[in-house]
Amino acid sequence: MLILVDAMGGDNAPDAIVNGCIDAIIEKDGFDITLIGDQDRIKKILDDRKFTNSRLTIQHSLEVITGEDSPTKAIRSKKNSSMVIGFNLLKEKKGDLFLSAGNSGALMAGALFILGRIEGVDRPSLPAIIPSKTGKALLIDAGLNTVCKPINYLQFGIMGSIYMRELFGIQKPRVGLINVGSEESKGSDVIKQAYSLLSTSDLNFIGNTEGKDIPIGNVDVAVCDGFVGNVVLKFLEGCGSFFVGALKNIFKSNKLTMLAALLIKKQLKEFMKQLDPDEEGGAPILGVKGLVIKSHGSSNAKTIKNVIVKRAYSLAGSNVLDQITEQFKNMEVDDIEQSE
Amino acid sequence: MLILVDAMGGDNAPDAIVNGCIDAIIEKDGFDITLIGDQDRIKKILDDRKFTNSRLTIQHSLEVITGEDSPTKAIRSKKNSSMVIGFNLLKEKKGDLFLSAGNSGALMAGALFILGRIEGVDRPSLPAIIPSKTGKALLIDAGLNTVCKPINYLQFGIMGSIYMRELFGIQKPRVGLINVGSEESKGSDVIKQAYSLLSTSDLNFIGNTEGKDIPIGNVDVAVCDGFVGNVVLKFLEGCGSFFVGALKNIFKSNKLTMLAALLIKKQLKEFMKQLDPDEEGGAPILGVKGLVIKSHGSSNAKTIKNVIVKRAYSLAGSNVLDQITEQFKNMEVDDIEQSE
Repeated sequence: MLILVDAMGGDNAPDAIVNGCIDAIIEKDGFDITLIGDQDRIKKILDDRKFTNSRLTIQHSLEVITGEDSPTKAIRSKKNSSMVIGFNLLKEKKGDLFLSAGNSGALMAGALFILGRIEGVDRPSLPAIIPSKTGKALLIDAGLNTVCKPINYLQFGIMGSIYMRELFGIQKPRVGLINVGSEESKGSDVIKQAYSLLSTSDLNFIGNTEGKDIPIGNVDVAVCDGFVGNVVLKFLEGCGSFFVGALKNIFKSNKLTMLAALLIKKQLKEFMKQLDPDEEGGAPILGVKGLVIKSHGSSNAKTIKNVIVKRAYSLAGSNVLDQITEQFKNMEVDDIEQSE
Repeated sequence: MLILVDAMGGDNAPDAIVNGCIDAIIEKDGFDITLIGDQDRIKKILDDRKFTNSRLTIQHSLEVITGEDSPTKAIRSKKNSSMVIGFNLLKEKKGDLFLSAGNSGALMAGALFILGRIEGVDRPSLPAIIPSKTGKALLIDAGLNTVCKPINYLQFGIMGSIYMRELFGIQKPRVGLINVGSEESKGSDVIKQAYSLLSTSDLNFIGNTEGKDIPIGNVDVAVCDGFVGNVVLKFLEGCGSFFVGALKNIFKSNKLTMLAALLIKKQLKEFMKQLDPDEEGGAPILGVKGLVIKSHGSSNAKTIKNVIVKRAYSLAGSNVLDQITEQFKNMEVDDIEQSE
């Protein structure tokens, strides 16, 4: 298995990226990494850590797509950028998965223009994992598609179900449509049509899902448009910060509470991992012809390491891509057109 | 100050409602309560608690609007229901505020049809208070208006600013438009038009606000449509349950963690109050000609007590209604029409 990594993408590149890759290789066997970017800078970081390992190779490239670049334009004009080279290597099957923490818009544009949509997929999606009482739920879409058509919700449900089944072993993922109440009559016309499509599909559709059902664990795949998904995802991030801050304040109250902090330190640390955006620092782009993981722009070395050992490794070894391709091949084109 | 309370509305009525009113009167001075509902049942609860106090009176009514009633029909046909009587008493200025935990749809219909919209207000709103690192933020709208026009966002910002200033003393509430990024170009066309209206208003508009900014405390009035607001509000409820559950599990780990629980018990209880839906169990309906508070259908006695002493008392004693009326009187009708 070869994981292609954009060494130059993200606020802390290339340091955080290269160090994360080194840590990933140290922590886990079973995959190689090709770092794409400025070989002098990459080599310097490897030298500083005195790291040499045949599992890690470098594909030199000097050009970089920055956060300020216009996404589509950058993908079309910066042919020798680390990101475009990464996409091309993936397209040519010279790697199993491409990971980048670079310009999100450009990453989406590259996925669409260089890899292309899987046949039958109307809109690719960027989902996010949300921790819950019973484990985890997938929020799909989490920001890529701000405005959606009814068919998109159905397709998100299909892709999300495959992802949760193949990656987390949930055999019949419970798919819920995020709505403002459990009754079928709730929501806008688009939401009502999405409900209708989902309820007549082969999915394990459990109906409308309220916001609280996600962290409580009543749903495995929570379907929504990218506006709602992004607000929820960011809100969770803020809540985590709010909760952790409040706990820290409690512990600081007096000597007894400081003692309490010591007594639950280990368990609390384990729990807080779930709320740490650096732990689940990457999300796949589903619906394109290749496996791509977008990592936070603010990714540090820990994020990159986690994304590689936890997410990229299992995704690259899974059947997600084949399953989505197969599933959508069987989808009648009429199904799409009819609801547009 | 006279607070009118629908004794028959809500899952636990009339017991929870009457007991909550008793507790509110015991806890706080400065207001009277009129309970509207079945006087025999109300009297029995008062007798059971051996409670007599001239501050609490009963307005008898046998008819009840239930959760199953069709909202608009119920308001129009059940003229002698506790809810309709409550609205009429408020309209006739025979009370300062009306509180009900009954059928939400009927409560909205009653507010619109019996009290009526304040002149200039396009859509009344139901906001919600969200706890944050720096205190609290107002999420407006939190579920009443699933689909919104640009002007609605502006009006939510105006009403929300008045509410936060008059009730919580925030002189220049920071108004943010909930969006999927900070750039002006983000979001749907409706959101972009809302941004434009907000940015040219007299409000202290700070631009787009991401989901995380609410719990972190970067915004005082977070403006959104009722779909997004409802999902966020319910999601917070679920997160609270998730966090509290996780902490409980941590404390149960072993004898040392149980000791830790004892050491931070007091401080933790204070913090958890912020996450307890029963603590902030009521929301005002803003934009109608009268002060109305909608309490959760599942309200228990504690919820009702809290809503009365914390929210209804301060709202009924505030200038919120006058300020909204005054502000919208000065709003050119053109402002509304132009953006529809």
